[in-house]
Amino acid sequence: MAQTSTPEEPARPAPNPRRRSERARRAILAAAGELLGEVGYARLTMEAIASRARVGKQTIYRWWPTKAAVVFDVFTEMTGGAAGDPLPDTGDLDADLRTVLHAIVEEYADPLMDRINRVFIAEVQTDPELAENVMELLLRPNLRAFRDRLLSAREAGLIDAGTDPDLAVDLLLAPVQQRWLMRSGELTHAYVDALVDTVMRALRPRG
Amino acid sequence: MAQTSTPEEPARPAPNPRRRSERARRAILAAAGELLGEVGYARLTMEAIASRARVGKQTIYRWWPTKAAVVFDVFTEMTGGAAGDPLPDTGDLDADLRTVLHAIVEEYADPLMDRINRVFIAEVQTDPELAENVMELLLRPNLRAFRDRLLSAREAGLIDAGTDPDLAVDLLLAPVQQRWLMRSGELTHAYVDALVDTVMRALRPRG
Repeated sequence: MAQTSTPEEPARPAPNPRRRSERARRAILAAAGELLGEVGYARLTMEAIASRARVGKQTIYRWWPTKAAVVFDVFTEMTGGAAGDPLPDTGDLDADLRTVLHAIVEEYADPLMDRINRVFIAEVQTDPELAENVMELLLRPNLRAFRDRLLSAREAGLIDAGTDPDLAVDLLLAPVQQRWLMRSGELTHAYVDALVDTVMRALRPRG
Repeated sequence: MAQTSTPEEPARPAPNPRRRSERARRAILAAAGELLGEVGYARLTMEAIASRARVGKQTIYRWWPTKAAVVFDVFTEMTGGAAGDPLPDTGDLDADLRTVLHAIVEEYADPLMDRINRVFIAEVQTDPELAENVMELLLRPNLRAFRDRLLSAREAGLIDAGTDPDLAVDLLLAPVQQRWLMRSGELTHAYVDALVDTVMRALRPRG
């Protein structure tokens, strides 16, 4: 790593542009996440994000063309991976589904994640363009990842050959999302374990 | 029916207070429904409802203490019955579930119903008091009606004695609500028929 020194200051590492970029990127995403929870998507501005992150507005535009693009990355960052990451495939379908659904339960239990997710759900209802972006960039890739895992299980003979993979994905995900969204019941690991057991009973190969 | 006449006018029925009340009630609910779709819940006011319905504001307050109370009745009216109406019980559980889910599909397909439902879902995310009211007055009674039907089916031996009725209700309702909410797939009678078939496979009595 390059070193620099002046008579006035002790030697210290020179600014590393890559590291500084990464710091700015993280500050912007953190600021956007906070502001989204505080003021909602409609009133979120690039100016406010820049000010909170202590960067110039142009720094944001260098990486993200729109505030929607920033917000998608906030989500991606918080969920710990790009939308549509493949599900684990250990060969044990039930265990793999439990692993992923437990992670979703933890995500919904996080207060900031909860707040931001709710803001997002609210905005999507009244902003059809944002709704389409969310579908295309977040939801469909995630549904597809579940679908792919179920298709590989169907090929392996773990679920019935007649299984409709889209319906199967709905059965696994919708109850979890619905409980979170409507606060209609407890969302625990025990609940999703029972969910996986019950759904798999419907999907197992039929004689 | 009482008749009245004056020299100036031909005989016509006297105003019937009960019928006039019913007309005002319907005008208020219709106005509230339209305005809810146009401006959303947050910006909905009793004044605007009164003006659109051509009644005095006091007429509204005579029947509804708050705008939330009006809006609940808009929903009740549009769904054609009080929240929590019991499900049909013909003895054929699958057929009864299909009947009710077909009606829900029709409800979501109605454009005004769709718009109002979306406004409601949006407001609920950022207004915890409204969310609790919706849960208590609309959602829980409906979930309970499904639950009761499943409990009676469990008693009749149509579903397994070990069935968790809350989980079973989630499996039947959440996929439908989720598809509507996220516009993540087609919501047809064929879809809910396949849903009922699949869920019932999981719930049938086990040997």
